[in-house]
Amino acid sequence: MSCGEFELIARYFDRATCSRRDVEKGIGDDCALLSVPEKQTLAISTDTLVCGVHFLRDIHPADLAYKALAVNLSDLAAMGADPAWLTLALTLPQVNESWLKAFSDSLFELLDYYNMQLVGGDTTRGPLSMTLGIHGLVPQGRALKRSGARIGDWIYVTGTLGDSAAGLALLQHHVKIDDPVAHEALIKRHLRPMPRVLQGQALRDLASSAIDLSDGLISDLGHILQASACGARLNLDALPLSEVVKQNFPAQQTLHWALSGGEDYELCFTVPEINRGALDVALGYHGVPYTCIGQIAPQSDGLTLLQNDRPVEINLKGFDHFGSR
Amino acid sequence: MSCGEFELIARYFDRATCSRRDVEKGIGDDCALLSVPEKQTLAISTDTLVCGVHFLRDIHPADLAYKALAVNLSDLAAMGADPAWLTLALTLPQVNESWLKAFSDSLFELLDYYNMQLVGGDTTRGPLSMTLGIHGLVPQGRALKRSGARIGDWIYVTGTLGDSAAGLALLQHHVKIDDPVAHEALIKRHLRPMPRVLQGQALRDLASSAIDLSDGLISDLGHILQASACGARLNLDALPLSEVVKQNFPAQQTLHWALSGGEDYELCFTVPEINRGALDVALGYHGVPYTCIGQIAPQSDGLTLLQNDRPVEINLKGFDHFGSR
Repeated sequence: MSCGEFELIARYFDRATCSRRDVEKGIGDDCALLSVPEKQTLAISTDTLVCGVHFLRDIHPADLAYKALAVNLSDLAAMGADPAWLTLALTLPQVNESWLKAFSDSLFELLDYYNMQLVGGDTTRGPLSMTLGIHGLVPQGRALKRSGARIGDWIYVTGTLGDSAAGLALLQHHVKIDDPVAHEALIKRHLRPMPRVLQGQALRDLASSAIDLSDGLISDLGHILQASACGARLNLDALPLSEVVKQNFPAQQTLHWALSGGEDYELCFTVPEINRGALDVALGYHGVPYTCIGQIAPQSDGLTLLQNDRPVEINLKGFDHFGSR
Repeated sequence: MSCGEFELIARYFDRATCSRRDVEKGIGDDCALLSVPEKQTLAISTDTLVCGVHFLRDIHPADLAYKALAVNLSDLAAMGADPAWLTLALTLPQVNESWLKAFSDSLFELLDYYNMQLVGGDTTRGPLSMTLGIHGLVPQGRALKRSGARIGDWIYVTGTLGDSAAGLALLQHHVKIDDPVAHEALIKRHLRPMPRVLQGQALRDLASSAIDLSDGLISDLGHILQASACGARLNLDALPLSEVVKQNFPAQQTLHWALSGGEDYELCFTVPEINRGALDVALGYHGVPYTCIGQIAPQSDGLTLLQNDRPVEINLKGFDHFGSR
């Protein structure tokens, strides 16, 4: 029996590059069969990427595969989980073998880097989109949640903010810069975000809450504040901006990108005063900067944005698929 | 901060109707946190349904939600797993509240029936489609697989075959029948397939292999034969057909539907001779008929179709999204 769909799946996605011992049965049965070790909790997350909504129509398939997986890895990072297994549901308008090869090569490169195994999925015909289901493991009781922030905790972010939004604006020709190296660097920050998996794991037992920055700092910090029933004071002067963004765009634009640009996939987390020393030890080993940008406040205070130590009003919204922009 | 997307998700999908003890964190964080009990294996499966490919554009949202979940439950059934958790990635062209209410009400009705919990997902804007990730639990080493069939094992199916294909043909006005009760019954078999979850569990330790019939008997049995490196002799005269199909359509049409119609979501499984008595005890308690339709043969014999005990040639293909029909 010759069936195009099954051959397709087999050819590009049934690769035995990584064979984890906790995978009893991977691709090729009605379900994958997986073992969760004792004293480990399963962490799972699902993200859909739709062509024209989450990625541009002309994106290279290698960039698309990278980003689809990186976005999901970022959710595991925000829980402090260790990546394990992936499912991929891929909807394609037609079979394009060179597209599939580039997509799957890039996907497996990143899977292998994290010692992950593709354990199942679905391939269907339709408008280009994909849904990834990512599964990670975290020691019992040590997962980072959004709900643990307490008044007085310090608010941190990893890396720099707004680069991804700047890269997207460049790709969409909404802005331009002359320096080709800076241009490339920002586009790479948009297309190839680095999930902070190791940083998330280092934050176990240290951070009181964490989230990854997918929708923009204001929006995502808002989720921590809501889940933790807190407010916050955010020091806009402290927001970490990359040199390339600072040198090429006006301050108001970079501030807007840093606060609401989205897709930076950095971690935003809170740390109690008592853990700040340990934090410096834990994250000091990593090459990724981290910056204190504010402090958790009582819920009744809401979210206060400070510039030069004075409250300012800024009208911003995070990315919202169904809301008005 | 008011964000349409998040409010939407909260309103329709964040229901605490079922709160399983093994769910440490459900909807509302970067990941769900889940506990797999000791000596249980995790069984996961993913299915995508695309509008116009897997369901008709005018399908009622309640039927769509039911079928989307039933199709995934059927994969768990084929492994003998106990349903536990669901993720739902829903892509919608626009927010239609009455559609969402009907869809989510129907989804939760079926989730509650199986004591399942919706633990995460994603809501995005785009062409109507959805990807479900289903998670079940099965005692270590007792999952049914496709690969265990051995020469001499008997081949069984649950229920009757071809009703779903007949229902689809009626919905698409490719065929018609005058009896309105029969018409309704067949359409219901297409829209509301009953996943054989309890039957799958009863087959643990008895069946040597199992699969659910999503693509059609020939195609799906083919997966068992391939995974088990076997052939089979299939007795076409024994195929279980419903009275309503037999009375309303010519024999050649019903045979075609039974062999390659797809979407029956019955179980096809193999049982060693020594377990046939135990099988009758195990499945006798269930109200679902099961029928022996053939026997596993050496791989070199391939798949032989028998009518009146004589080999016949029938040109059939299973449903293949990217193959030629």
